[in-house]
Amino acid sequence: QPITNDLVVAGFLNDNAPDFKALTIFIEHRYYGETAPFGSLDKAFDNTNNLGYFTSAQALADYAEVLMSLKKNLSAESCPVIVMGGSYGGMLASWFRLKYPHIAMGALASSAPILYFEDIVPQDIYYVIATNDFKEASMNCYKTIRKSWSTIDKIASQANGFSLLSKKFKTCKPISDSSELKNYLDSMYNKAAQYDAPPGYPVNQICDAIDKASKTTTDTLSRIAAGFIALNGKQKCYDLQAGNSLTYDKLGWYWQTCTDLVIPMGKNRDNTMFPVAPYNLNNYTKSCQAIFDDTVKARPHWIVNEFGGHDIKRVLKKFGSNIIFSNGLRDPYSGGGVLQNISNTLVAIKAAKGSHCLDIQYSSKDDPIWLTKMRASIIKIMKDWLAEYYKML
Amino acid sequence: QPITNDLVVAGFLNDNAPDFKALTIFIEHRYYGETAPFGSLDKAFDNTNNLGYFTSAQALADYAEVLMSLKKNLSAESCPVIVMGGSYGGMLASWFRLKYPHIAMGALASSAPILYFEDIVPQDIYYVIATNDFKEASMNCYKTIRKSWSTIDKIASQANGFSLLSKKFKTCKPISDSSELKNYLDSMYNKAAQYDAPPGYPVNQICDAIDKASKTTTDTLSRIAAGFIALNGKQKCYDLQAGNSLTYDKLGWYWQTCTDLVIPMGKNRDNTMFPVAPYNLNNYTKSCQAIFDDTVKARPHWIVNEFGGHDIKRVLKKFGSNIIFSNGLRDPYSGGGVLQNISNTLVAIKAAKGSHCLDIQYSSKDDPIWLTKMRASIIKIMKDWLAEYYKML
Repeated sequence: QPITNDLVVAGFLNDNAPDFKALTIFIEHRYYGETAPFGSLDKAFDNTNNLGYFTSAQALADYAEVLMSLKKNLSAESCPVIVMGGSYGGMLASWFRLKYPHIAMGALASSAPILYFEDIVPQDIYYVIATNDFKEASMNCYKTIRKSWSTIDKIASQANGFSLLSKKFKTCKPISDSSELKNYLDSMYNKAAQYDAPPGYPVNQICDAIDKASKTTTDTLSRIAAGFIALNGKQKCYDLQAGNSLTYDKLGWYWQTCTDLVIPMGKNRDNTMFPVAPYNLNNYTKSCQAIFDDTVKARPHWIVNEFGGHDIKRVLKKFGSNIIFSNGLRDPYSGGGVLQNISNTLVAIKAAKGSHCLDIQYSSKDDPIWLTKMRASIIKIMKDWLAEYYKML
Repeated sequence: QPITNDLVVAGFLNDNAPDFKALTIFIEHRYYGETAPFGSLDKAFDNTNNLGYFTSAQALADYAEVLMSLKKNLSAESCPVIVMGGSYGGMLASWFRLKYPHIAMGALASSAPILYFEDIVPQDIYYVIATNDFKEASMNCYKTIRKSWSTIDKIASQANGFSLLSKKFKTCKPISDSSELKNYLDSMYNKAAQYDAPPGYPVNQICDAIDKASKTTTDTLSRIAAGFIALNGKQKCYDLQAGNSLTYDKLGWYWQTCTDLVIPMGKNRDNTMFPVAPYNLNNYTKSCQAIFDDTVKARPHWIVNEFGGHDIKRVLKKFGSNIIFSNGLRDPYSGGGVLQNISNTLVAIKAAKGSHCLDIQYSSKDDPIWLTKMRASIIKIMKDWLAEYYKML
């Protein structure tokens, strides 16, 4: 996404920079936002040759060039640099510290699923954790959702089924395929789990409404619709296609997940509340070729070859230093995160109640104590890094 | 150069692989030898767009892909990999260990001048060391060479001067410019110093002949010619242009030294036996543009930004492990090498009498004891790495 999106959310830097007397630098990733190689996004995305320079490794090299050039221009060669980011940005932060230790002396990798590649973690770990979030909120809610997919299919297959579904979910346009609704709900539950943050706690919003409806109706669809409406707020009608338009930012992420960051996420077993949908590399490649062209091949091994991942504890035990891997354990992506200390200076910080990237957001007086403590631990570690850095200078 | 050139010289692997029960793998660097992207070398070198993929970073990524794919195909995922190389190959070996610790558990970087970038070491360090090699062989030899450049210029400026020079050096084609001869001799002395290895010891060959001639003539040119002829052996005539044809391998190295590995070598002070010839980035860029096209810009900061180099001791003290930096101190390139231990596992091995890349060549029963000892130290360290690797497995 454009860096401007991050600026208004990732407030951890702005909150803490004054105390560190730090210069904050936000560097936009090439091909996102307004960072268009070849002069314009139209040209940058024009063909797969031009897209060939759209990789995480190239982005890291950009950061290196920008930071080194800034250091020179500001006569700040010996100033320590700490890089940070969340989600994919967190992966980039940890990889940057590993690949460019001469530029960044430390990294905060928030909610960075750097192990969600090849077969390092189970393909369905994301969905298992999301399911657990719902189970924790309410077993009735979990069971209702788990049952709902076949209910939707059953209704859709009946005469007037689509009309019934459209009416139940007050869709702006009539539903013409049950997968429209199922995909929407699937994604809605996952996002709710991923961003299940205070003060809203969307998982609770959904489950409270489902549980409340369960007291007055045994109809699964009515219960699901209650959760759907509670989360979205009362509207005249609901647009299931909202946000589905294909921006360059979205296309860019497709490009990266096709060629660079091939995350093998799949619901390969019937152990979640979601319908089974196994990951299949061939189908994945076909969908990539449908978006781009036939020359595009998914590269499922690239990230692991380039940045590692297997046996990370053994490999990095005596290699690398000064990386914080922070995770909220209710974040489905934490399943691909580093959750154990690798060494004294490669540390995992976990918040049992945390969700995706909470720690790097702006602090607020309504923050729960565990979140305030999480941020304090991170700052304490960074200050230790800096003290040692200046001692060794 | 093509990997086939290395195969017949870099015998350290073949000499020791059986003892380690190791598989030896020689991977050719892209764009050299027969490793032609875009289907052929003609196409690969056709334009600067195609040459854009010709970088050290891309070569490292190739090695990663090849090694990981081999490991998978051979079911050798947990087999330790040690990478090694000499000169530029030594740089690649050390950088590979730093960037791909998950693939290579150790590296031998033989005669790798990874610090010969930006202003990390003096620009003339190469020529200072080469000069010292000649001084050590004979002060008379050093003085004769140092004086010879102006002598050559003086003669060249006289009537029949070129004819006299051509006759003195028995050139196959008449000399038409004094720089022809001076460039040849300059390069000859440097190569002699760089490869001043047993049993031939070319610096001694040159200096012995110069000293011998000095007993019978005071003529500087005759003394220099004696050194020249002694090194090249008796021939009917001497071709100063021999080996000057522009192969793709040579063009490739020009490309890399223009865009990737910009080594600022220059004789900026009158403190060597060579004529003063300062390094100048503008002129350097112009010569690159003359070879390729006007879009080519020398990137003097790239290597340092990508791989580091400044304050290497501080930066790597707690980062990285298992790299041997081996250098022969009579090798002019050792001036850009890592000559001090950085940590317990980032170690410098130095041979006071050694020249360029001697340690990774085939052993021979005529090897001096210090060379045999140098190789034994390297093998001892590698065995320690392996013992620890298997312990941690």
